Amino acid sequence: MVNVESAFLNKKVLITGGLGFIGSTLARRLVDLGARVTVLDSLIPEYGGNLFNVDGIQDRLRINISDVRDEHSMKYLVRGHEYLFNLAGQTSHMDSMADPFSDLEINAKAQLYILEACRNSNPGVRTVFASTRQVYGRPQYLPVDERHPLRPVDINGVNKLTGEWYHLLYHDVHGIRTTVLRLTNTIGPRMRIRDARQTFVGVWIKMLVSGLPFEVWGGSQVRDFTYVDDAVEAFLLAAADKDAEGMVYNLGGDQPVSLQETARLLIDVHGSGTFVTKEYPADRRKIDIGDYYADYGKIHTAIGWSPKTPLREALRKTVDFYKANGARYL
Amino acid sequence: MVNVESAFLNKKVLITGGLGFIGSTLARRLVDLGARVTVLDSLIPEYGGNLFNVDGIQDRLRINISDVRDEHSMKYLVRGHEYLFNLAGQTSHMDSMADPFSDLEINAKAQLYILEACRNSNPGVRTVFASTRQVYGRPQYLPVDERHPLRPVDINGVNKLTGEWYHLLYHDVHGIRTTVLRLTNTIGPRMRIRDARQTFVGVWIKMLVSGLPFEVWGGSQVRDFTYVDDAVEAFLLAAADKDAEGMVYNLGGDQPVSLQETARLLIDVHGSGTFVTKEYPADRRKIDIGDYYADYGKIHTAIGWSPKTPLREALRKTVDFYKANGARYL
Repeated sequence: MVNVESAFLNKKVLITGGLGFIGSTLARRLVDLGARVTVLDSLIPEYGGNLFNVDGIQDRLRINISDVRDEHSMKYLVRGHEYLFNLAGQTSHMDSMADPFSDLEINAKAQLYILEACRNSNPGVRTVFASTRQVYGRPQYLPVDERHPLRPVDINGVNKLTGEWYHLLYHDVHGIRTTVLRLTNTIGPRMRIRDARQTFVGVWIKMLVSGLPFEVWGGSQVRDFTYVDDAVEAFLLAAADKDAEGMVYNLGGDQPVSLQETARLLIDVHGSGTFVTKEYPADRRKIDIGDYYADYGKIHTAIGWSPKTPLREALRKTVDFYKANGARYL
Repeated sequence: MVNVESAFLNKKVLITGGLGFIGSTLARRLVDLGARVTVLDSLIPEYGGNLFNVDGIQDRLRINISDVRDEHSMKYLVRGHEYLFNLAGQTSHMDSMADPFSDLEINAKAQLYILEACRNSNPGVRTVFASTRQVYGRPQYLPVDERHPLRPVDINGVNKLTGEWYHLLYHDVHGIRTTVLRLTNTIGPRMRIRDARQTFVGVWIKMLVSGLPFEVWGGSQVRDFTYVDDAVEAFLLAAADKDAEGMVYNLGGDQPVSLQETARLLIDVHGSGTFVTKEYPADRRKIDIGDYYADYGKIHTAIGWSPKTPLREALRKTVDFYKANGARYL
């Protein structure tokens, strides 16, 4: 197993989507590890970027506001970096159905801009791409491992898979050293809570810390949750370990849990609150995947990652963060 | 089983890529079946479109020169048709590696234009999409059935899969009645022979009818071939049969055969000719899929299709066509 504590010292690192939830948490960790970090973000209001996410470390990294759909910026910015953590993306399933073209441009076409820039100007870069469990669609068995058939049920899932395959192809054909991580629900401080565009837990927490009841749609669906610090550790391990090159790995959570249980646990760690159970709206149900939880045995065996943070602790840390900082996210 | 002889009488049919190899052969058959056919084609010189492909039936169909990447044309043209055969595409694997963006725009983004036009202006249309065996990548077992894992090895394979999934998604979510056919090597009259952009058999025949030796790269690779009339029958059956809605089917050939055997058979039906065996060029080998042949049992069981034309007869008819008409394709 590699030692991430030393792997990034003085290394030049680019993080796309670096002002977003996971990207900024990764940036914080890398800055602490002594890396020379550039975060790239478009700060599109409907997405996850938020300047407050790098509050306190602004002077220890470089912030570059630009959009991954900007081919020429990408050509310039990719140069000279030893690591590229590629997290910029459109994440809302519903938005992808209403506006499939923006989702295609960001999650697929822009990935080609980035990979072509790597191929032409920085073929030695080490990259990790943030993909999603959405590529599997509705699980045919549980837990879902990486051999599960791929059949995305929404435009976002299709386009993320396209972006994922571009990365694998540029590895196989052009030798770009890349790893794909398929994330499940990631939660933690700095996630978007204004709405459910990033995760439904976000909007639950918004209501909870505002003293309002939150809505649970359905409720019996089973999910798994990765705490953001654990997800960040996976990105670092994947980037640092040669064995991860050209590989696809699921991330996962410490236990499968229903939405209703999650809601109750959230209220418990918050100390108060209520929720109401609602029927799924018709348009949302059409693209729902039912129960999902991941088998993360492959990444565990290969590079030693597993989720370390129990769900209760993850929810408590998250709630505490928004109790203190909620206003910066509303 | 449905009766394709009567299903298309007086029906309004749109064929994208309708001046191409398979599209024009489909148009010829549909005109004979009494359909009211519009062929749409961009006539991009590097692609398969050729006005000579509709020679003799020009007065029995409507020709509309436009590009599927033209969002507004698509919005207008999709309206009012009862059937949409969606065959327009970039087919060259090598070109997709050199220019991934054009391949993305045509094989993925333009498919969204077409499907959005269906959803907004013609939700009752019946569509069939021409996909490719390239979505499977290198076979993990033979023959390859539809359950085989998907792992395309070139940009064209990725983008065709993206286009395929858009079609399945618009079926599942928006109710657009669509069928996806995964074609293997299709051969026959009206294919492109100027180069290997559509099929390597094309460039073999160009050399053969010009009295020159043709090149076989490698030679031991196994492939299957569908004669174009059989492929056309699959499109008609799929469009006419309700059981095919939302389904993905492989097409296949009457027998697996090595490239060297195919080359010898071709020379045999031509009556003369020679070929030379060459090493695969390095850039081509990187995206080669090795041996491939399809299991077409699923479409056979579901809607009764199977390839009818033996390879020898397919090659003979093809060679005869280019002996007579070769000049129109050079």
